Amino acid sequence: MPVYTCTTVQSMLSADTKADLAAEVTRIHSMINHVPGAYVNVVFHELPADAVYTDGQPAQPLLINGWVRTGHPEAQSSQLVAEVAAAASRVTGIPAKRILVVIQNSPAHLAIEGGRVLPAPGEEEAWLRETAVQGQEAD
Amino acid sequence: MPVYTCTTVQSMLSADTKADLAAEVTRIHSMINHVPGAYVNVVFHELPADAVYTDGQPAQPLLINGWVRTGHPEAQSSQLVAEVAAAASRVTGIPAKRILVVIQNSPAHLAIEGGRVLPAPGEEEAWLRETAVQGQEAD
Amino acid sequence: MPVYTCTTVQSMLSADTKADLAAEVTRIHSMINHVPGAYVNVVFHELPADAVYTDGQPAQPLLINGWVRTGHPEAQSSQLVAEVAAAASRVTGIPAKRILVVIQNSPAHLAIEGGRVLPAPGEEEAWLRETAVQGQEAD
Repeated sequence: MPVYTCTTVQSMLSADTKADLAAEVTRIHSMINHVPGAYVNVVFHELPADAVYTDGQPAQPLLINGWVRTGHPEAQSSQLVAEVAAAASRVTGIPAKRILVVIQNSPAHLAIEGGRVLPAPGEEEAWLRETAVQGQEAD
Repeated sequence: MPVYTCTTVQSMLSADTKADLAAEVTRIHSMINHVPGAYVNVVFHELPADAVYTDGQPAQPLLINGWVRTGHPEAQSSQLVAEVAAAASRVTGIPAKRILVVIQNSPAHLAIEGGRVLPAPGEEEAWLRETAVQGQEAD
Repeated sequence: MPVYTCTTVQSMLSADTKADLAAEVTRIHSMINHVPGAYVNVVFHELPADAVYTDGQPAQPLLINGWVRTGHPEAQSSQLVAEVAAAASRVTGIPAKRILVVIQNSPAHLAIEGGRVLPAPGEEEAWLRETAVQGQEAD
């Protein structure tokens, strides 16, 4: 369901670091937002040095943009962004002051995965059960 | 007006498939949201294999994020996301379970194209007429 | 705080033009939204010619997506998008009709930078003062 898009300049993150950050963001999102890891996507945009600016100068931030479904309880969303930001610094070694994490959202009914409209927050269980049934029927 | 951003790993979509998907998304958006195709943008981010993760593992999803103006009728938005998701699987041959389509929006007055603030949904005709007039004056 | 993401085809913008556009967008955002330039990020996605479509055909638009915090006064947001769009054409020489600028937003409490939740619009001063204090303590 969610998509986390991480943007950096090239060569800032090793392949291992990307895998580790993807795993950690997946673990955190899965735990806090009650979504199996199989539905958590993490992608990396690694751009040339002359394509990333902070303060109008070439820079090396780590920008993470997460898309989630609208309607999670506010405390849950606050915990999510806090844990993702902490993980980003912990896993990559990049100082927190160069890391920006932003969560955006849109209503679940404006998203489709596996051919089905996503469930609203809190309604994941029935949706996942139905998906499992469809998977078996497809076997 | 809209921008559809498709994210995959490299070599997953041929040049022909990208062109076909762009054409089909354009046709669908144009028909449902009443916008001439000339205002529909589709872009592809094709990332290295070690830059795309699902469930914390390298994976090959097709992630489509569409930005549209806020305020389309809900039924119209539901039809839009459903038809884009169906087209994505039909055109690319990628199974629906690896495809996630998300629609995001912001108010038309927070977007400018051709130097003019975008029209709210339902007000496209007057806006397009005015654009045509300006184009003739510019000739 | 904000992130402006500019998408074009490769070789459309020189390195100098990218730097100039980043500087100008930073200056505009800083002035209108009361954020020091050190918190303004501008990134460029330069895609292959067969990865960017308008009207279902390969095309060369300049697409700018800005993420800002929710809650800026509407007049301020309108000025922001207008000045960014004007700067994009002025700095790059690309005709306005090929330029689309979109502003998206989410609540400040859904974003973290430097390890701290972002301030709501209008509360930047206290937040920045606190950041300065933390910076001194870290020295």
